[in-house]
Amino acid sequence: MGVVEMGELAFVGLGLNDETNVSLKGLEKAKKADVVFAELYTNLMPGLSIQRLERLIKNRVQMVKRQDLEEKNGEIILTHAEKARVVLLVAGDPLIATTHIDLRIRAHKKGIKTSVVHGASIISAVFGLSCLQNYKFGRSVTIPFPNNGLISETPYNVIAENKKMGLHTLCFLDIRAEEERFMTIKEGLQSLFTLERRKRQGIMTAKTLVVGIARAGSENSAVKAEFSKELLKYDFGAPPQSLVFPGKLHFKEAEALVALAEAPEHIMKMIE
Amino acid sequence: MGVVEMGELAFVGLGLNDETNVSLKGLEKAKKADVVFAELYTNLMPGLSIQRLERLIKNRVQMVKRQDLEEKNGEIILTHAEKARVVLLVAGDPLIATTHIDLRIRAHKKGIKTSVVHGASIISAVFGLSCLQNYKFGRSVTIPFPNNGLISETPYNVIAENKKMGLHTLCFLDIRAEEERFMTIKEGLQSLFTLERRKRQGIMTAKTLVVGIARAGSENSAVKAEFSKELLKYDFGAPPQSLVFPGKLHFKEAEALVALAEAPEHIMKMIE
Repeated sequence: MGVVEMGELAFVGLGLNDETNVSLKGLEKAKKADVVFAELYTNLMPGLSIQRLERLIKNRVQMVKRQDLEEKNGEIILTHAEKARVVLLVAGDPLIATTHIDLRIRAHKKGIKTSVVHGASIISAVFGLSCLQNYKFGRSVTIPFPNNGLISETPYNVIAENKKMGLHTLCFLDIRAEEERFMTIKEGLQSLFTLERRKRQGIMTAKTLVVGIARAGSENSAVKAEFSKELLKYDFGAPPQSLVFPGKLHFKEAEALVALAEAPEHIMKMIE
Repeated sequence: MGVVEMGELAFVGLGLNDETNVSLKGLEKAKKADVVFAELYTNLMPGLSIQRLERLIKNRVQMVKRQDLEEKNGEIILTHAEKARVVLLVAGDPLIATTHIDLRIRAHKKGIKTSVVHGASIISAVFGLSCLQNYKFGRSVTIPFPNNGLISETPYNVIAENKKMGLHTLCFLDIRAEEERFMTIKEGLQSLFTLERRKRQGIMTAKTLVVGIARAGSENSAVKAEFSKELLKYDFGAPPQSLVFPGKLHFKEAEALVALAEAPEHIMKMIE
């Protein structure tokens, strides 16, 4: 442990899937830290091993639970960061989760210096893997698990709004890491089929083209574009999974979907 | 050089700013490659040193120019990738640039196996650094340099569309790395002020709140939220820079802008 006059809190993104997606800069930060925490309940990194991570950073990793951050306001982290160099490891890119922003504000109010080491994010990974142009994505949305049997209409409405403007929609699928529940592409599609029967705006028909993406950032990631009814039958394997609903396709995008995402060749005829 | 029966092409994201933002996985890929190319003309990584990068990956790096990819269709890369393990290093996260998707399609058509190692992207970095919630960002847009004196209206229209829905807008600022021209936040704002005088929709007034972000991913990144007229006077330092136009602010977002982006405290009164 080095002697420091003032503490600091560095948010370090681990990137996607496993510990080898951390950056050299993030690795250095974690090696030099006096205390290292990891928050892994908001995301799923299926290839991550805490033991391998600890060997890499030559430091012990203390896991932070949801209640540590959301009920106890991250006290355990902030108390250390007042007098020591603390690193908080998080999945993906830090500050995308509101919880991290909240913690950063609290650190700031206590006069603790903060910094960020960015990591690969599911947002740009899915933008790229979907073969679609990033500036044509409208707002993103999460398809949540039904709450007491109630299905949120928000994802349906967001896809509809975006489609009206010709824009693509990235749908995150609900992750409840603490309960080990991860929504599958099939469940996400079924939720939208239910909403289509209720709302009948033609947003989610059997002929709607969808791109499914599984395990972005891993060696065995899967990307498949298909009409929704066919995609229901496709086996994407293990979580995490995401969905993309294309808006109006440019010729180049359709070409990429056929070449790189196994889309049916006749989607080329759908292009104006 | 290892003996390989079939070639392959791996797209490896270097992340932001400098070579230490590459992931361990990306570094390994580049070390094991038979041939390493780098495409760095679509983005600016101000802290990058090719010499340090070559030392890190223990491999020589061949720079790819725009004409190699856009006129000669990446022939030099594909020819090597037919029989050797080739890595193409790119700034940020690969496949966000259309050029990389085009190259991947061409590789696929030649039967060359491709893979992707994700890197930190300016998209999620700016989402996070702006202190705004990622699912409230509408489509992104680039503010281009004027073309023969003509100013594109697209950025103005995209911000207007997003604002109508209460959504935030990420504006990339034009980068012409080959000409060493990088649009500044000031130039971007001025371009939008010109459009406001023409279109008069109240999208870009003196009282419009804007977030400026410079050098994301570096040790000396800058984030500042201010009303546009004041922000014009703020010195963000060296490129690259980006702009964010907040839509309807949630209380939590406004609080974060004040605490972490030095926004004027009275923006709290703008919240409904």
